[in-house]
Amino acid sequence: MTTYKLTYFNLTARAEQIRFLLSYLNVDFEDVRFEREQWPAIKPTMPFGKVPVLEIDGKTFNQSIAICRYLAKKAGLAGDDEWESLLIDVAVDNIYEIRQEIMNYYHEPNEEIKSKLRGPIVNDSIPFYIDRFENIVSENGGYFVNGKLSWPDLYFVSILDHIKSVIDVDLVDGRPHFTAFKHKVLAIPQIKSWIAKRPKSQ
Amino acid sequence: MTTYKLTYFNLTARAEQIRFLLSYLNVDFEDVRFEREQWPAIKPTMPFGKVPVLEIDGKTFNQSIAICRYLAKKAGLAGDDEWESLLIDVAVDNIYEIRQEIMNYYHEPNEEIKSKLRGPIVNDSIPFYIDRFENIVSENGGYFVNGKLSWPDLYFVSILDHIKSVIDVDLVDGRPHFTAFKHKVLAIPQIKSWIAKRPKSQ
Repeated sequence: MTTYKLTYFNLTARAEQIRFLLSYLNVDFEDVRFEREQWPAIKPTMPFGKVPVLEIDGKTFNQSIAICRYLAKKAGLAGDDEWESLLIDVAVDNIYEIRQEIMNYYHEPNEEIKSKLRGPIVNDSIPFYIDRFENIVSENGGYFVNGKLSWPDLYFVSILDHIKSVIDVDLVDGRPHFTAFKHKVLAIPQIKSWIAKRPKSQ
Repeated sequence: MTTYKLTYFNLTARAEQIRFLLSYLNVDFEDVRFEREQWPAIKPTMPFGKVPVLEIDGKTFNQSIAICRYLAKKAGLAGDDEWESLLIDVAVDNIYEIRQEIMNYYHEPNEEIKSKLRGPIVNDSIPFYIDRFENIVSENGGYFVNGKLSWPDLYFVSILDHIKSVIDVDLVDGRPHFTAFKHKVLAIPQIKSWIAKRPKSQ
């Protein structure tokens, strides 16, 4: 049996998308969480100095999106042909792009610059992306791609709590169709069960 | 016959990786290039307001990495099984990550901040990533993954000129094995032919 060991901070952030997929797959995984003060000692042991990493049968991989795609293939959520996989990969990278813009704001060390960044992201970038995502989901039968569950659906919902915590915006708030989409994904039995049992994180 | 139409600035930058793969595939493609002053008129017509986009049989896709993966599958350069595809996707995302750090520096609008960013990138981040890449290539028979050509090899070499133009660092300079790797990729007949005939760009 394949063994999985995930290493990350005690946060949802960049690891929750992996935890969602491992949960969806109904596989056991070791969910190693460390505290911020442990990071300086752990960082040099990581392949590119970053986390999350997933060990699969003892081999360590970084890059959360690449890891998710691998798990999504195992779960049958990465497309039935190359064309569908392209639609899925485009959706994931579009979600990644707005997430990254929000995280660049969050990690900005200069408080003056940071406060200037917030307005354009909240008033322009977020609505720009979320309007488009909501259209895509409504045109595709309630999912990001081709009227059926695929991993961008899980990815998008997995990051909502963390986004809210870093910029205080609920991406689906005030959008009835998108709120229904979120609840549909959260009602998937394996996801519901994971969220009920997952450790509390900041 | 599938038709391909690529739309981008008259730059290598984010489009050259797509042009390399289309060239490798030996397919004809329309290489639409526009000037900076045309961008404000073009931007609102793009699916997420960004380029490059590739039209495949009239359907428009953004997200260059997703597009490359689709083309790489057609070219047999995206892995023979899910494990190899994971190694390939991790390699691509690692390359993307250091490229993105360099581009964030390049696009920094505040000149004072920009000049402070350069040192850590040139002295720390670039050697950190490139040392690891060089080790990976030397441990994998002269390629990023499993001793044979795959699309991270083309991706990495496709961005070198542009990186040099934005931060004035040649990523393979002073690294004999990596320089040999670059020349090996540039000697692939379809790539060599593309570079000989491609339009001059900044």
